[in-house]
Amino acid sequence: MSTMTQAVPRAASGHPKLLSGKDAAAAVEEELIRDVAALKAAGIAPGLAVVRVGEDPASATYVRNKVLAAERVGMRSIHEHLPETTGQAALERAIETLNADPAVHGILCQLPLPPQLDPNRITRLIDPTKDVDCFHPYNVGLLSLGEPRFLPCTPAGILDLLQRGDIPVSGQRVVILGRSNIVGRPLALLLSHKGWDATVTLCHSRTRDLPQLTRQADILVAATGIAEWVTGDMVREGVVVIDVGMNRVEDATRKTGYRLCGDVHYASVAPKCAAITPVPGGVGPMTISMLLRNTVQAARLRLPA
Amino acid sequence: MSTMTQAVPRAASGHPKLLSGKDAAAAVEEELIRDVAALKAAGIAPGLAVVRVGEDPASATYVRNKVLAAERVGMRSIHEHLPETTGQAALERAIETLNADPAVHGILCQLPLPPQLDPNRITRLIDPTKDVDCFHPYNVGLLSLGEPRFLPCTPAGILDLLQRGDIPVSGQRVVILGRSNIVGRPLALLLSHKGWDATVTLCHSRTRDLPQLTRQADILVAATGIAEWVTGDMVREGVVVIDVGMNRVEDATRKTGYRLCGDVHYASVAPKCAAITPVPGGVGPMTISMLLRNTVQAARLRLPA
Repeated sequence: MSTMTQAVPRAASGHPKLLSGKDAAAAVEEELIRDVAALKAAGIAPGLAVVRVGEDPASATYVRNKVLAAERVGMRSIHEHLPETTGQAALERAIETLNADPAVHGILCQLPLPPQLDPNRITRLIDPTKDVDCFHPYNVGLLSLGEPRFLPCTPAGILDLLQRGDIPVSGQRVVILGRSNIVGRPLALLLSHKGWDATVTLCHSRTRDLPQLTRQADILVAATGIAEWVTGDMVREGVVVIDVGMNRVEDATRKTGYRLCGDVHYASVAPKCAAITPVPGGVGPMTISMLLRNTVQAARLRLPA
Repeated sequence: MSTMTQAVPRAASGHPKLLSGKDAAAAVEEELIRDVAALKAAGIAPGLAVVRVGEDPASATYVRNKVLAAERVGMRSIHEHLPETTGQAALERAIETLNADPAVHGILCQLPLPPQLDPNRITRLIDPTKDVDCFHPYNVGLLSLGEPRFLPCTPAGILDLLQRGDIPVSGQRVVILGRSNIVGRPLALLLSHKGWDATVTLCHSRTRDLPQLTRQADILVAATGIAEWVTGDMVREGVVVIDVGMNRVEDATRKTGYRLCGDVHYASVAPKCAAITPVPGGVGPMTISMLLRNTVQAARLRLPA
């Protein structure tokens, strides 16, 4: 097995390279504007349907941002807003209507759902060829088998940031903190497949001697949901750090009473990094761009062969 | 995260504990005889259909062993043998007939297929509720999501050997060599899920500094297909070694001209092990038992709720 080491050069200033998701998302949107225009020229106007149930304010914001982003790249968007008291059968009918609508290429149901609804049944009802969140078991299986139809949005955003940042991945040791079905696990699957060829260790709450593992990482991905949990003593010099976290911590010095931070203690970790994602403005902004990219991909599935 | 260390006690003799798949498979068959009888008493006679195309001699042996094992536990078995020249449409019709047959609970199509046939299309045509090899993307996805309907046979056999051998897994460092869709990758998924809670590193041909990684393993799984590739210097004292390999190497001292060996160099590795699987007689015998267990599971899906 290969013994070649590829080191990421540190910036000459001693400051880490910033992997800006804001800049990358803007670049992806430029690409998507061209992709959408090309599809329209071929007779297919990509359409994204976002289903939201109830009045959760965070969900309302997420959905609004998705719809606005779709419009920015010239995509048709449908925002299906159902009342808080919607029953399972009514939600399933709404999904089935969208499944059958040839003008809808991508469908997502914003989670969480009110407690009377079963999110698993909804996820599995969405037509897998329109499943732009890549949550359907069939699509998760294709991903595991190394033949993904769609890439799950947050992992895809991380891959895009690594590529745009010229971060070598093949043969690198990647340590992922957090085994969720939305981030850690699909990212581990993707990075360990042929083409990416990283050596991945997936860590979680039962992992022991964690700092001994994180200090071996060439690339460390933090997706634990624990504010500023990765500290400088847990990483080696020259590491690349991807911080998926977005946490609110109390901060009396702010007008809002809180500040946003990631799962990484930036002040102690960043000085040791070759590259790091900021929070906010790192992984977060990429997620919606990847959702739109999947919708373009779903529309392409409808092109004549 | 937990810092508790669970050490596997070495046998007092200095010899490693042997994880015998032969003994474990016999024990599983005893359990299955009872399970099949109970299902029959409930009005369901579990049935396994094995589809084979052509005259590959190894496939003929595998299929015969599967059919014989099914009969030993009291299961009905169908051996569908199609000619070497079978076309894709004819094979698909055969699968569809078995999908529709209520007396057939498990279906597998023995691989490899003759070159004119597309194995992926066949794998995806088998009714996922009858997919006892757990190769269908929907079932692979359920596995990845931590809600498996069936367990893939070789990984399931390894889990069973670990359980029967009282090998602690939670919190342990597991290093898996080989990222195949049949062994390495699904085993990594299973062992890193809640309930098993291992910290898994998945290694492959692009992994660098491999011995530095394998020496950290509490449990080392070799599934590379390279004869005797793991040597004593690559493991630490007290490791548990699972050898998935089954290789023929030339041996002029044998009447047959060859001997069977695993992916592990037994002579140098075993003396350092707390426990190890022999080859032959380790993982191999478990695979068919797990196939039958999946068939029982598939039959149970037909029980009235």
